[in-house]
Amino acid sequence: MEKKIKVGVMGATGMVGQNYLRLLADHPWYEVSYVAASPRSAGKTYVEAVEGRWQMITPIPDNVKGLIVGNAADISAAKGKCSLLFSAVNLPKEEIKKLEMAYADQGFAVVSNNSAHRHTADVPMLIPEVNAAHAEIIPQQRKHYGWDKGLLAVKPNCSVQSYVTPVYALMEKGYRVDEMIVTTLQALSGAGYPGPSALDMLDNVVPFINGEEEKSEIEPQKILGDIKNGKFVYDESIKISAHCNRVSVIDGHTACVSLKFKGEKPEISEITKIWEEFSSVPQELELPTAPEQAIVVRHEADRPQPRKDRDEGKGMAVTVGRLRKCNVFDYRFVGLSHNTVRGAAGGAILMAELLTAKEYIK
Amino acid sequence: MEKKIKVGVMGATGMVGQNYLRLLADHPWYEVSYVAASPRSAGKTYVEAVEGRWQMITPIPDNVKGLIVGNAADISAAKGKCSLLFSAVNLPKEEIKKLEMAYADQGFAVVSNNSAHRHTADVPMLIPEVNAAHAEIIPQQRKHYGWDKGLLAVKPNCSVQSYVTPVYALMEKGYRVDEMIVTTLQALSGAGYPGPSALDMLDNVVPFINGEEEKSEIEPQKILGDIKNGKFVYDESIKISAHCNRVSVIDGHTACVSLKFKGEKPEISEITKIWEEFSSVPQELELPTAPEQAIVVRHEADRPQPRKDRDEGKGMAVTVGRLRKCNVFDYRFVGLSHNTVRGAAGGAILMAELLTAKEYIK
Amino acid sequence: MEKKIKVGVMGATGMVGQNYLRLLADHPWYEVSYVAASPRSAGKTYVEAVEGRWQMITPIPDNVKGLIVGNAADISAAKGKCSLLFSAVNLPKEEIKKLEMAYADQGFAVVSNNSAHRHTADVPMLIPEVNAAHAEIIPQQRKHYGWDKGLLAVKPNCSVQSYVTPVYALMEKGYRVDEMIVTTLQALSGAGYPGPSALDMLDNVVPFINGEEEKSEIEPQKILGDIKNGKFVYDESIKISAHCNRVSVIDGHTACVSLKFKGEKPEISEITKIWEEFSSVPQELELPTAPEQAIVVRHEADRPQPRKDRDEGKGMAVTVGRLRKCNVFDYRFVGLSHNTVRGAAGGAILMAELLTAKEYIK
Amino acid sequence: MEKKIKVGVMGATGMVGQNYLRLLADHPWYEVSYVAASPRSAGKTYVEAVEGRWQMITPIPDNVKGLIVGNAADISAAKGKCSLLFSAVNLPKEEIKKLEMAYADQGFAVVSNNSAHRHTADVPMLIPEVNAAHAEIIPQQRKHYGWDKGLLAVKPNCSVQSYVTPVYALMEKGYRVDEMIVTTLQALSGAGYPGPSALDMLDNVVPFINGEEEKSEIEPQKILGDIKNGKFVYDESIKISAHCNRVSVIDGHTACVSLKFKGEKPEISEITKIWEEFSSVPQELELPTAPEQAIVVRHEADRPQPRKDRDEGKGMAVTVGRLRKCNVFDYRFVGLSHNTVRGAAGGAILMAELLTAKEYIK
Repeated sequence: MEKKIKVGVMGATGMVGQNYLRLLADHPWYEVSYVAASPRSAGKTYVEAVEGRWQMITPIPDNVKGLIVGNAADISAAKGKCSLLFSAVNLPKEEIKKLEMAYADQGFAVVSNNSAHRHTADVPMLIPEVNAAHAEIIPQQRKHYGWDKGLLAVKPNCSVQSYVTPVYALMEKGYRVDEMIVTTLQALSGAGYPGPSALDMLDNVVPFINGEEEKSEIEPQKILGDIKNGKFVYDESIKISAHCNRVSVIDGHTACVSLKFKGEKPEISEITKIWEEFSSVPQELELPTAPEQAIVVRHEADRPQPRKDRDEGKGMAVTVGRLRKCNVFDYRFVGLSHNTVRGAAGGAILMAELLTAKEYIK
Repeated sequence: MEKKIKVGVMGATGMVGQNYLRLLADHPWYEVSYVAASPRSAGKTYVEAVEGRWQMITPIPDNVKGLIVGNAADISAAKGKCSLLFSAVNLPKEEIKKLEMAYADQGFAVVSNNSAHRHTADVPMLIPEVNAAHAEIIPQQRKHYGWDKGLLAVKPNCSVQSYVTPVYALMEKGYRVDEMIVTTLQALSGAGYPGPSALDMLDNVVPFINGEEEKSEIEPQKILGDIKNGKFVYDESIKISAHCNRVSVIDGHTACVSLKFKGEKPEISEITKIWEEFSSVPQELELPTAPEQAIVVRHEADRPQPRKDRDEGKGMAVTVGRLRKCNVFDYRFVGLSHNTVRGAAGGAILMAELLTAKEYIK
Repeated sequence: MEKKIKVGVMGATGMVGQNYLRLLADHPWYEVSYVAASPRSAGKTYVEAVEGRWQMITPIPDNVKGLIVGNAADISAAKGKCSLLFSAVNLPKEEIKKLEMAYADQGFAVVSNNSAHRHTADVPMLIPEVNAAHAEIIPQQRKHYGWDKGLLAVKPNCSVQSYVTPVYALMEKGYRVDEMIVTTLQALSGAGYPGPSALDMLDNVVPFINGEEEKSEIEPQKILGDIKNGKFVYDESIKISAHCNRVSVIDGHTACVSLKFKGEKPEISEITKIWEEFSSVPQELELPTAPEQAIVVRHEADRPQPRKDRDEGKGMAVTVGRLRKCNVFDYRFVGLSHNTVRGAAGGAILMAELLTAKEYIK
Repeated sequence: MEKKIKVGVMGATGMVGQNYLRLLADHPWYEVSYVAASPRSAGKTYVEAVEGRWQMITPIPDNVKGLIVGNAADISAAKGKCSLLFSAVNLPKEEIKKLEMAYADQGFAVVSNNSAHRHTADVPMLIPEVNAAHAEIIPQQRKHYGWDKGLLAVKPNCSVQSYVTPVYALMEKGYRVDEMIVTTLQALSGAGYPGPSALDMLDNVVPFINGEEEKSEIEPQKILGDIKNGKFVYDESIKISAHCNRVSVIDGHTACVSLKFKGEKPEISEITKIWEEFSSVPQELELPTAPEQAIVVRHEADRPQPRKDRDEGKGMAVTVGRLRKCNVFDYRFVGLSHNTVRGAAGGAILMAELLTAKEYIK
């Protein structure tokens, strides 16, 4: 890349926004040139706006410290400052919907973490290893809305990352998945900061996360679906039931998965082989944030574990283990992914890289 | 009861043994008159033997402090000291098998926490609310082995208590359970002391407990089965698949359950009603350790939770919540039980009370 | 007591308020007949007002479920409903100051957890084992303010309970304490609910609690001081330096104390003896909430520990251990007390009992 | 460095040994060419020997996977394989004493984590920022023992790193420290693996670590002492009293320090300036493992915190904060250092680098 693409981060003072800034600090293609947040932060330098709220272990990157925070609601403030916008803005869902559309309408490539547009008709919801082809909806999206350079693409929920890629790897080889029962043990950081009270989590488990089960069940149907006649067709043949739990883990969502195929099913050894050999579009395109190994298979009896495996592939890999027969369905396994890297900012950056490689973002 | 029955506790210095002593401290029917452990402890007073190893929050009960610890392997040492023996002895499985049989052969009523005899032909594995009728195998057991007063009965694994009773309550009303997929989030104390290292558990989850999934799958088939022609017939029509995880919780096993019926299935409101109205043999017999309410239904979106609900019914109730439709099976719910009370010493004491009420133990 | 005294709890929906209701549920002298909270809760039944916020492990006591919550700011609402008021109201300090005075002015005996009046001239700050004699300020307080039945007494901060009583026990025997350096490891519940974020506490320690060190240093000077000429004279000869840390513990504040005497100092064996034999006014008066043993000495090398020792004396005892020589001062020890029982509601109830026994509250 | 120095790691399969291998993986001066452990591991490849016991988050470095593990007790096995030996061998103290001497006698430069030789007459105990000059004892050590190339140097206990360097920085400017009272909150990893049970640490604090207080009090007297007439003279004028606690933190020891000077004392602003400007021998010599900033000052009210600050300077910096007046002594502050990096393997590697730069190790 001769010249870096200028990018903005909306919701830059929040926890996902901070993760974007951390992960983009030395990005070979992108350069953070704009940050936006609520009116309360607007007008301050980033370092002032985030004072006492910086949650990352690494310090605030030097390149953003002095940036003047814009008001995320004011589209004109971003004009000329960047062409790609990562949206992690914290607003009511309907306001996000309008705002992200309005930015795209003004020519920005908007890549969003929010759930607002995940089921909007021609907005792709991308896991680049799984449904890179869904990016091909962009020309039609642009035509539909009359956008020239603008676009809108969204990242799925963090909870689905631990099981959708391993399941897709099998589907890609021709095996048809019928039913899945998934129980997640999700990390605290998935709730944002401050998130759950320590009094509620110490010596405890909370077997409920508001809205999470629905997302975990429906989003994979879009991701694993097709584009037909310019429309997303959800794969409703894949039935998923999710139990979502919050556990005392900083980062890393674990999923216990029972899986049933329809028609032919692979042997255990074949599944392992498929996972170990799995390589997809991000690896082929050598996208900067792509993990070398998209799926890492652990062979120990007690892995993956969040603290020990979440950083695999710099937090971008999915780690799987405990593949075994299921008494009720065909197979069982445990999947793990880093929810604030692969499941949030890192996943969105990889999406943007895909759209850049495909020249939708310039 | 005119006179208390004298009871012994084998494995009295271990964590389950300590729980027995704690729970039996003021028991209306039983009086601890004998404790046994390994040869290393034998000959010491209990207070000496357990020095530095007492894990209970409450102090060592006064009535056992001065008891001289016997060698568990020496049956003659128990002779005349007690008629009921709770076994939580820690030995290789084959040795436990022989030892418990030998005690029963010598006229002791042996009630065991160990897994050694769970699948022995005419040994009942009891959850008194579920299969009190299985106690009726005792006459045949005695005949088979030529025992006069001796008997042997065992408690199932702690992991099954969180879901078997709620499921049984539905079966009792005529609904037939076909398949269950269960993911457990199990407490540290289930592993005994010292159990997992803090370095392995802090900011982590371990998605594996050795042998636990097999027990969680097979034991309910015996418990929910029948006695036919003097033999236990496992109910193999109920297929269970279990994922067992260790989480950072002191006490209380949580189970996320997906449930499929065969034939007619109840409405959600009916299931709730069945659970709330569930009362069984221990309640009818007013056994001292029986919880008033065997199944407690919580209606909040985020309950049950181990720290908040494990002490329900003095740790003897099963708490359920989050009953809802399942996308794949019929229903989903979360069950919780206290693993060292209901799931270990408390459950065994309730079994003994049942056998006493039925006059098998005198 | 022929007839129970009617008591009200202000701030009844908060965590300290809930603790009051829990601890007063079966009180032999007191009967909760009134609860008050913010205008938002006023008019609802208690069970409605506290819905989704009840943090206690035990259920809401039946006797308060149906009480209509009053507006704490409306003194007339309490009139005729109770004579003793426990105040755990959550308002700005200046408003609390006025409100508690106004209640006392209207004839209520006000016993408060708040810090607002801790240094008000003739308001006693009581640890009944230590400075029961300070209650004798009440007649003068009443005279000063022209109150007939009203009174105002306050509880010190939870952090001081782990070391003031053991130190007082030595002072009572004639030893003069000169300097103390105290490092506390304080429980989450001390911050109220929701308190610290789990993300801040997991795998972490926070070496700061706002305002806590000042309270820990100054309050003991009043408690250990005298009444001279009708005024509290702080014992400024006792210099205390406190480091206050928040740690991942649900309940129980631990204090590491280094202690220097002036003049004669006791032997270690004598200190232990003084502590073990310590008995004071609450024990002599047999106040219902008084622990039998006010100071419990543990002799193990690694005790006291919060989870294992906080419930000593139903949470009302102070547990001490690790008494040893100090390289810099004279002695070192570790003290522990239950911050939401002895350090909050339980301590205030014991204060009220003292004032009742002395017939200041009728 | 033209050619890397060959180094061996003894006790390579333990947790400190694993940290050595992790930190030495890409070292510019050193190349791991030998690993040794107990006879049980001897003869296996490293990857076989450590199977199921590798505790690091990063994978086993490729360069050591295939090394054949030697028997640490067999000195001849190391001969010709390396010239520098890091010792983290796990043996009884007296055996370690002999073994480390024997290795030095055979010409190895031995840099040890063990406490065995910390108070041996001419063995330097080094914190390179503090007492690099103590390395000058080596010629005399060699003369004393008749060693040609061999040497023996030791690292102090992990608990002292959080406060000795900040205190030394003040002493270097001419201020004389008189007394210190230190309370540590130490991480789990300091106890090695498996270390404390999760059942003992969850919702708890353990106010005792065997032998730790004595080390924390005496070792600084040697480190801050002088060499006079070829002998270490401990600075016994500095009196330290330590309270050592174990808390639920993976890595990072926190110390709450109260400090008293004799004679002139600095202002707060001056202390901060001294710390921020502190730079010492490792920084001047640009040792590869030296942190750029040896002491990092945090100005927030609630820092340092272990999870957020332990990785400062790649785990080699000491972070300080909360500098304020002390009611009893002169000042108080909180210090933090990473116990398995600065406090163990990283600190020892820095020592070796110092000895290499001074050409004692070649």
